[in-house]
Amino acid sequence: MVLQAIKYTRGQLEILDQLKLPHAEGYDHIYSSTDAWHAIKEMRTRGAPAIAIVAALALAVELTNMKLSSVAEEVQVFITEKLDYLVTSRPTAVNLADAAGKLRKITEDAAKKEGASGDFVREAYVKAAEQMLVDDVSDNENIGKHGAEWIVKNTEAGKKGPVSMLTHCNTGSLATAGYGTALGVIRSLHSSGSLKHAFCSETRPYNQGSRLTAFELVHDQIPATLVTDSMAAALLRLRGGSENIAGIVVGADRVAANGDTANKIGTYSLAILAKHHGVKFLVAAPRTTIDLKTKSGADIVIEERAGKEVTLIKGPRHDGVNLDLAVVETVSIAANGINVWNPAFDVTPAELIDGIITEVGVFEKDSEGIFHLEEAFQAKGSEVKPSTIGGL
Amino acid sequence: MVLQAIKYTRGQLEILDQLKLPHAEGYDHIYSSTDAWHAIKEMRTRGAPAIAIVAALALAVELTNMKLSSVAEEVQVFITEKLDYLVTSRPTAVNLADAAGKLRKITEDAAKKEGASGDFVREAYVKAAEQMLVDDVSDNENIGKHGAEWIVKNTEAGKKGPVSMLTHCNTGSLATAGYGTALGVIRSLHSSGSLKHAFCSETRPYNQGSRLTAFELVHDQIPATLVTDSMAAALLRLRGGSENIAGIVVGADRVAANGDTANKIGTYSLAILAKHHGVKFLVAAPRTTIDLKTKSGADIVIEERAGKEVTLIKGPRHDGVNLDLAVVETVSIAANGINVWNPAFDVTPAELIDGIITEVGVFEKDSEGIFHLEEAFQAKGSEVKPSTIGGL
Repeated sequence: MVLQAIKYTRGQLEILDQLKLPHAEGYDHIYSSTDAWHAIKEMRTRGAPAIAIVAALALAVELTNMKLSSVAEEVQVFITEKLDYLVTSRPTAVNLADAAGKLRKITEDAAKKEGASGDFVREAYVKAAEQMLVDDVSDNENIGKHGAEWIVKNTEAGKKGPVSMLTHCNTGSLATAGYGTALGVIRSLHSSGSLKHAFCSETRPYNQGSRLTAFELVHDQIPATLVTDSMAAALLRLRGGSENIAGIVVGADRVAANGDTANKIGTYSLAILAKHHGVKFLVAAPRTTIDLKTKSGADIVIEERAGKEVTLIKGPRHDGVNLDLAVVETVSIAANGINVWNPAFDVTPAELIDGIITEVGVFEKDSEGIFHLEEAFQAKGSEVKPSTIGGL
Repeated sequence: MVLQAIKYTRGQLEILDQLKLPHAEGYDHIYSSTDAWHAIKEMRTRGAPAIAIVAALALAVELTNMKLSSVAEEVQVFITEKLDYLVTSRPTAVNLADAAGKLRKITEDAAKKEGASGDFVREAYVKAAEQMLVDDVSDNENIGKHGAEWIVKNTEAGKKGPVSMLTHCNTGSLATAGYGTALGVIRSLHSSGSLKHAFCSETRPYNQGSRLTAFELVHDQIPATLVTDSMAAALLRLRGGSENIAGIVVGADRVAANGDTANKIGTYSLAILAKHHGVKFLVAAPRTTIDLKTKSGADIVIEERAGKEVTLIKGPRHDGVNLDLAVVETVSIAANGINVWNPAFDVTPAELIDGIITEVGVFEKDSEGIFHLEEAFQAKGSEVKPSTIGGL
């Protein structure tokens, strides 16, 4: 059963408390936009797409369960004010602001309809919010399906039998509306019987790989092994053959028009290692992550974070035999006084990327080595939404 | 002032307690072979060459300060028994067994001399042990000198001005008899005014880079910055030019006859990254680390260590503001139940290595890409000592 970080039925929303992960799995009920605001602020829910969905659905739950005015305009104003409030929970999250903008527009349009009642406006909002969840999960499932099919068909390993893949950071149910992007590709390989083994890198300094991706892999009972970031090269060299490793699949924080991809620090290193060992390097991301207005990676500014993210590390206390989940400690793992460079992201140039997996298919470079990502938007004429860089 | 982990004058030995590093700097007096046995067993001293020297010098101190028999044979038997005992502190350490064997032979030879007294045998032992310290430190200083000169002369960065270098794991005063190998090269660049900046990688999972190398760099006031292993590629790409990075220099646990080098996990990855970015990749090691009997890296068995070295991490407690050095905690940093692959070392193929820096000079490949490491032993006809893989 695929891990669900967001559980929704009309009038009811639960979110997996990510602050307790990976050591405890507990869901919080979200009854209102106020509950969602606090959950986002306190990082109990995280990942840019997930935050937007939780905010939208929290207000849907609140509206479903409350006694509403019968006047359409009053309901519209109420919704607009709540959306503005929800955006303040994470002002830098572009996905959240985008989602709020779209929902505001839908609500205004509904309120303007002739003979619209309060109920009508509420129904328009709730349906739109529910559709966002459905669409996001379905986009991820399609990313998974396209990616898995491409790997089976287009890699030497895929032609031989079930493949192994390495992934980086967390791109699963814990970072998206559900299913995941790069981890969705691994889930899809697994569910179609095409996965031999998943490897996840620790992803220093914040350890999203060892904490979150490892948690999802264990939860879904996908055969998986954790390695440190420094072991990826040795893994490809020593176990590439025996594990039938087809390649490395990662997510993206932003894909530029030419295919250059900003993603969690360490991604660029893995792309070089994939090339050196002759295995595929794939980026999995919904089209909302492709930003045609960013020409290339050179236009992407990389956030540098505090050094203490590298020198201090937090986790439940281990007494030598057992974990004490009730006691979370922070320990120092570096010499005092050392300078630290801590870029949160790096940019992988398009030349190192074999394919960009989206919900409408896998994009490869043409014979001259150029991606044509604008084609991703032509089929359905979807709008491009800029993505943000900076979340954990 | 270069950090000294071993302080010796005749009759007196102090060692830096490495269990307290990097957060506290305290020296322990070693009065006897029993003291040394416990210091080695408890890992207060570490690094294969350092262990051998500490054992040899501890017995020298004991002999210097004790009331000895005047009978040569009795002193010889006493020394032999103590050496046998010292070897049991770390039976797998080849350097320690080698050193004990040499000292045993010197003692036996002295005892056989006509008219040899107890004092004469003692003097022979003590001088030989002292010479080991002098030779090891001098070998490392020569490695540093040859490496620094080679980098200044043979790299594009060196021709431009002071260079920056990246190093991995700990190869400094804390792992050797003093000065260090790869870190000795960086020390030598610094002391000759040819170093712009040193970068050290964290070196997961045991963090020798962030704990020990960072400590040495801060101690010696060498301008330095810590990065995670996953940041090395981004460092070379984004800061290679501005920092004038000449390359990467690492130590070795064993160098095979063809130049393939076994070293701390992550080394192979760095070698690939150096090649991709067109900077030099150098191995610094005394000739005792070159094992001509090992034909290539394929003959080297890699030790796999326990997964908990990756999933648990230890350090002094940080309360959010301050470190409490008195309280060392272990915390969990990974999901429960995840499998871990934890190879302690990897093998970097000779093709990725630009030079092997020894105390007699830097060895480069010939025009056909072949190292001729046997030449390292021809100048002085030194014996080859096999090295060991497995220490921390």
